[in-house]
Amino acid sequence: MLVNGQHQESLPATDRATHYGDGVFETILIRAGSPVLLSRHLQRLQHASQRLQIPLDPAELQAEVVQLLSEQNPQTGVLKILLSRGSGGRGYTPPAHPQPTRMLQLHPLPAEYARHAADGIHATRCQHPLSVNPALAGLKHLNRLDQVMASLELSADTQEGLMCDPDGTLIEGIKSNVFVHDGKQWLTPDLHACGVNGIMRQWLLQKAAPVQVSVLREETLLTAEEVFVCNSVFGIWPVRTLQWGPHARHIGIGARTRHLQSLFEVCQE
Amino acid sequence: MLVNGQHQESLPATDRATHYGDGVFETILIRAGSPVLLSRHLQRLQHASQRLQIPLDPAELQAEVVQLLSEQNPQTGVLKILLSRGSGGRGYTPPAHPQPTRMLQLHPLPAEYARHAADGIHATRCQHPLSVNPALAGLKHLNRLDQVMASLELSADTQEGLMCDPDGTLIEGIKSNVFVHDGKQWLTPDLHACGVNGIMRQWLLQKAAPVQVSVLREETLLTAEEVFVCNSVFGIWPVRTLQWGPHARHIGIGARTRHLQSLFEVCQE
Repeated sequence: MLVNGQHQESLPATDRATHYGDGVFETILIRAGSPVLLSRHLQRLQHASQRLQIPLDPAELQAEVVQLLSEQNPQTGVLKILLSRGSGGRGYTPPAHPQPTRMLQLHPLPAEYARHAADGIHATRCQHPLSVNPALAGLKHLNRLDQVMASLELSADTQEGLMCDPDGTLIEGIKSNVFVHDGKQWLTPDLHACGVNGIMRQWLLQKAAPVQVSVLREETLLTAEEVFVCNSVFGIWPVRTLQWGPHARHIGIGARTRHLQSLFEVCQE
Repeated sequence: MLVNGQHQESLPATDRATHYGDGVFETILIRAGSPVLLSRHLQRLQHASQRLQIPLDPAELQAEVVQLLSEQNPQTGVLKILLSRGSGGRGYTPPAHPQPTRMLQLHPLPAEYARHAADGIHATRCQHPLSVNPALAGLKHLNRLDQVMASLELSADTQEGLMCDPDGTLIEGIKSNVFVHDGKQWLTPDLHACGVNGIMRQWLLQKAAPVQVSVLREETLLTAEEVFVCNSVFGIWPVRTLQWGPHARHIGIGARTRHLQSLFEVCQE
């Protein structure tokens, strides 16, 4: 683990990430020794740091990424970058000149991820709703208690939970975004009020174009020809069986989903 | 600082408070050497830990409070208790048997707090909205990015910001709850969908009874005879001047507010 370029395993107990979730993060796939979609991740982090007014020197961060990868030289894995506003300030009020914390960690890629991509997964609707806030929507910030609480609902044989806003509209998966094909086109939920604008989602909005971004009605989900969840670490997991409240569905893994998976497998970005 | 009963100034960088805001906290006034409303704070923490499914042994925590206060023996100050789910788990999914982190810190009581209680404050409406989520509403959890972002809006001569939900309905102050008197009765916003159910608010719902808990209309705020913000550390701050969007108001500090302040000054709970 690297914290501001130094090897350490702890943080000051005063860090604002710990007290307020005052920061943002990225998780990046390492494949064949290279970070995948790295420039998109770093751009999103930079954008988020500007939204939250947390100073970030992109060149400094990039140098730390290079440092950690060259030291550890992982062939596959997950790189997590966490940017917090650091310590200081007075209560919620940030210090006038924050000294941010950049934390980089490498994790192994879970062994079963490839199997889920090949065989598809079981997904279920979670009861815990997502928090609604247009001012934070889209950001991968550190306020992730909704995802933790939704995770507690899942049984061991369920690979992903689907989350709705408090009105019951599908927004995303706990750790993923959702795409469905209704036979005519790909659709994915609108995230203007809540949800994380995932890097894989952004990539797919280009690669699967045209994709309709809209309120996704329950009926659409329950009659879709293909459904998948995606994130930039595991790529695309077809949803093969779905439990949506009282509705249980078996969904085939379609050629369109397989096509998008094949595009991601050779993605060199 | 005490972490699980041990003196230390750092936390493992893997703590779930840091990564997800996966925990809750309390801030408690120390006055004349004693914690004020301590049993209410500990009860709320226990209630919140049950809601979030974080194990907590109340006797163990209480012993750590006694340990820290007897070691430091502060006459006045602020005791912060932070309870996180600790390290471990897999991504958002908590470990099956969490080893929580209990962190206790003592801070000085800001010198100007007594002056604000005596002279009243300037409060302004913040643009950043509160996140809406009935499943988390009321809890003093560690997902506090809304409060951080709202704090960034305040100028140095503004002691508190008032926050609304995304629909523009007043909910609370950044670090406080809000009470207004319309000439007939006290009113305070309903918190079923967002906001923190403050200990001082709970105490006042009893001491200022009857208090109408309801949607607080803008018109009510702009014509109220008395307005104050409250929390269990600073007690009651009368709002003497208010900037609410384009509306600037001077509000007198009324006898009813002074009466409630005097009750809190001698509170022995």
